[in-house]
Amino acid sequence: MGKTIRFGVSLDSDLLDRFDRVCEEKSYQTRSEAIRDLIRNMLVQREWEEAKGELAGTLSLVYDHHHSGLTQKLLEIQHEVHDVILSTLHVHLDHHNCLEVLVLKGPADKIKTLGQKLISSKGVKHGQLGLTTTGQDLL
Amino acid sequence: MGKTIRFGVSLDSDLLDRFDRVCEEKSYQTRSEAIRDLIRNMLVQREWEEAKGELAGTLSLVYDHHHSGLTQKLLEIQHEVHDVILSTLHVHLDHHNCLEVLVLKGPADKIKTLGQKLISSKGVKHGQLGLTTTGQDLL
Amino acid sequence: MGKTIRFGVSLDSDLLDRFDRVCEEKSYQTRSEAIRDLIRNMLVQREWEEAKGELAGTLSLVYDHHHSGLTQKLLEIQHEVHDVILSTLHVHLDHHNCLEVLVLKGPADKIKTLGQKLISSKGVKHGQLGLTTTGQDLL
Amino acid sequence: MGKTIRFGVSLDSDLLDRFDRVCEEKSYQTRSEAIRDLIRNMLVQREWEEAKGELAGTLSLVYDHHHSGLTQKLLEIQHEVHDVILSTLHVHLDHHNCLEVLVLKGPADKIKTLGQKLISSKGVKHGQLGLTTTGQDLL
Repeated sequence: MGKTIRFGVSLDSDLLDRFDRVCEEKSYQTRSEAIRDLIRNMLVQREWEEAKGELAGTLSLVYDHHHSGLTQKLLEIQHEVHDVILSTLHVHLDHHNCLEVLVLKGPADKIKTLGQKLISSKGVKHGQLGLTTTGQDLL
Repeated sequence: MGKTIRFGVSLDSDLLDRFDRVCEEKSYQTRSEAIRDLIRNMLVQREWEEAKGELAGTLSLVYDHHHSGLTQKLLEIQHEVHDVILSTLHVHLDHHNCLEVLVLKGPADKIKTLGQKLISSKGVKHGQLGLTTTGQDLL
Repeated sequence: MGKTIRFGVSLDSDLLDRFDRVCEEKSYQTRSEAIRDLIRNMLVQREWEEAKGELAGTLSLVYDHHHSGLTQKLLEIQHEVHDVILSTLHVHLDHHNCLEVLVLKGPADKIKTLGQKLISSKGVKHGQLGLTTTGQDLL
Repeated sequence: MGKTIRFGVSLDSDLLDRFDRVCEEKSYQTRSEAIRDLIRNMLVQREWEEAKGELAGTLSLVYDHHHSGLTQKLLEIQHEVHDVILSTLHVHLDHHNCLEVLVLKGPADKIKTLGQKLISSKGVKHGQLGLTTTGQDLL
């Protein structure tokens, strides 16, 4: 972590008014915090484009646990690459539906391949990979 | 849950070849399963556009727990709307960074407002709302 | 157009280094310009979420002009709402394929409905609505 | 272009009802056409992920033509890579604002680099690259 630096941004006053209004709607307390978020989003997007080093992602799966052999299959796929799965959370949405979230950390291609295998399993109704960050070098 | 129906789709053979190849790359075992996934994705997207009834989402937050007062603030925001938060999962990524996932169920606007409040909190490095489904009527 | 205002943003020096590097890769000449772009993107996204007033969009269509009755059908759909279509550009990609771009200005729902009608026409291979802005109040 | 093939898809009847309703809202005349569109979208997305061969895109730019030296600069950037720009369309949105669309065909990296250079130019208010297809092998 480096030291905090302050630099100036010049902007048309009308544009600044609109920006301030949206910041308030989104609950930002300062302009700096909103701009830091815009910058960090841009950097996280770039991390995934470059696909180097360790990345983090969250995979959500909605499925019917009554589907024959499905829970067993999902477990087996996960164990093959257990080293990229930090943890999983399971919620019983109703009598049939489960929502499971996997927190993933590792190389981009390994995370994406795992996501495709789980999402394409028969009985999984909806699957989605959220691209986030390990937070390192992102202060 | 209704009964299973079979219907025909007509497609150019070259296009079908390309589709089959991508299905294989994505680990789909049958064309039907790949097409059901395309259809269900389209319906989940529509659910969020229409924003009616109960929806489900997953919110991921990466933050530094050393940031003064942050964990307390995130907890307070969550307790105000505890009824839309089904569960949360916390992972210690390293000495500084935490990744927290919240599983959310409720009306679209309540889910989005909660997401904006948490994401805009100072000290949260990256936040992201994943739009998924309760799985009801999605067989 | 208001007057130009300068305000300060505080940021960790390591984060600033990463931001500067990505700005350079993306050909930004100053930090201010990159931040103005991030802010304007956020505002354009917000314009489309709020869906008020006049918005602008570009619709691209790729289709085979040999497809029976298609060019006639696309023209008829367009003439029904000619007031939201400012102009169109047509490119002959090869012997079969055409790429057509429509520049649209008007209410959000009218733009979206037109897009869906054209994209869903049989013979259109790929269609896509790009959400942009009339540029007013966006300095 | 191959011959037309017909294959069966099995689906729960409730899911099919929901799919039919959304197809109608989106103006699809047959299920087959809607499914072909879903498949072609998946393939176009894949084309851009793989980034091989010739791809097509549309770049939209909104800018103020009064901005000193801007039109000249945009022209110069375009001429450096004129071979990937098939055509451009210019619309005078109002006294200040222009909307310009460039139709691009070429390698993925060349299209993306050109997009970044133009979008990052000072005076460009909003820029956006739409990823589409040359339509070849997409019947």
